[in-house]
Amino acid sequence: MDRAELLAFLGREFPQVAADFDITAVTPDLLTMRLLTAERHLRPGGTVSGPTMFALADVAIYLAILSRIGPVALAVTTNCSIDFMRKPEAGRDLLAEARLLKLGRQLAVGDVLIRSEGAEGVVARAALTYAIPPRG
Amino acid sequence: MDRAELLAFLGREFPQVAADFDITAVTPDLLTMRLLTAERHLRPGGTVSGPTMFALADVAIYLAILSRIGPVALAVTTNCSIDFMRKPEAGRDLLAEARLLKLGRQLAVGDVLIRSEGAEGVVARAALTYAIPPRG
Amino acid sequence: MDRAELLAFLGREFPQVAADFDITAVTPDLLTMRLLTAERHLRPGGTVSGPTMFALADVAIYLAILSRIGPVALAVTTNCSIDFMRKPEAGRDLLAEARLLKLGRQLAVGDVLIRSEGAEGVVARAALTYAIPPRG
Amino acid sequence: MDRAELLAFLGREFPQVAADFDITAVTPDLLTMRLLTAERHLRPGGTVSGPTMFALADVAIYLAILSRIGPVALAVTTNCSIDFMRKPEAGRDLLAEARLLKLGRQLAVGDVLIRSEGAEGVVARAALTYAIPPRG
Repeated sequence: MDRAELLAFLGREFPQVAADFDITAVTPDLLTMRLLTAERHLRPGGTVSGPTMFALADVAIYLAILSRIGPVALAVTTNCSIDFMRKPEAGRDLLAEARLLKLGRQLAVGDVLIRSEGAEGVVARAALTYAIPPRG
Repeated sequence: MDRAELLAFLGREFPQVAADFDITAVTPDLLTMRLLTAERHLRPGGTVSGPTMFALADVAIYLAILSRIGPVALAVTTNCSIDFMRKPEAGRDLLAEARLLKLGRQLAVGDVLIRSEGAEGVVARAALTYAIPPRG
Repeated sequence: MDRAELLAFLGREFPQVAADFDITAVTPDLLTMRLLTAERHLRPGGTVSGPTMFALADVAIYLAILSRIGPVALAVTTNCSIDFMRKPEAGRDLLAEARLLKLGRQLAVGDVLIRSEGAEGVVARAALTYAIPPRG
Repeated sequence: MDRAELLAFLGREFPQVAADFDITAVTPDLLTMRLLTAERHLRPGGTVSGPTMFALADVAIYLAILSRIGPVALAVTTNCSIDFMRKPEAGRDLLAEARLLKLGRQLAVGDVLIRSEGAEGVVARAALTYAIPPRG
């Protein structure tokens, strides 16, 4: 699936959150996303909340998987380990880089790095495992 | 801090999310919370989303720490590892049990078990580490 | 499998490490193990090394799974998240309590708490996921 | 600390394990290590054991930290999340690439990718957090 197909899938299957995210690039090795930071994502002090960063990492790996195997609405997250390392910069979007390290028949594993737009330091790093349902 | 103080703190410092949660019990060993499940927490099929369960685990450990050391708004999550094991039951609240395993001067570590109300099976299990700022 | 069967399996399939461990109790809910602490497990200062605690947690969940489903030599660890919270006490064995939170057809998830014998504080806590091969 | 200093430190402080490892390169951004695979690291089938891979990841991040801040024997691992994705190839050394994502005053966080020598696929990926003791 390419960028347009992934965005259409997201809008159709996850209408509650689709407006929060944009996809900035998709290649076989890397999917990059943007969190369109809004008031509802913030904590006091203007920084993006932990659950919002979790959601960004989760959807980025999910779409990276779909970009390789097609629309599988039933793939589910089984594990996420996330490290929060720096405060996001107030008033900036977050960018996520998602890489698949394994895409097996039953499990997919990927890594996500999250940074504030225009900044070098990694804000959060997540590793996620998805279970992929048996395919036809 | 007792239940009333914790709820007042949550409403004051985290007004965006305070309405999502109730505290059902606080002892030195265990804090139990309820996610007041609402439409905005759900994914297609009526189950609670992963980021919502992450948020529930995160706030439960945060409040367990505050119940022991008092209001420290600046304690921050540094790591969370969460396993999603079963689908939450549709149409039920989620209950979280949070236990602190370590409460050091700089780091606190806790475990959370999340279940659907009235069900035995664990829906999700999370381990969280918080960094505690130096105290005066 | 009961305690004697599990120990026999361990000695047969994992002769390199079987002498490091004893099983102190097995019930459907809980398996407890002892690390027979020896010089080769120690770091400077006389405390047990991190990799040794990882090995203890890993084998405890593995045997807890086998105690429920029988000898499946090919079950493999897919994820472990481990928190090291306190120094083990020098000169004491370590005790591990392993609990299965999920035992599905493809994945098993469990928690392990490790303490120094005779001490209250948790030395390390681990969550492990095992992939279980399809059963004939 | 450069490669020679790191190897000397390892031999002096961790004589039990120093013979297991070599450092193949050190730059400010990346430290690469080799596990000198030996019989004692193997499981039935000839693949390297999980605890050995944990040890490799742990020492690689430890040395990456020391290469930046000098010999701090008391830095301790507080968390490790490791995903095992592929069987290591029998009869080959393992290579680890360690990158620091954060080097703060109190906490350091890094990522490790482990591959079999000469193979592309990632065998294991680990994220580790170290607590750094206050410096003078």
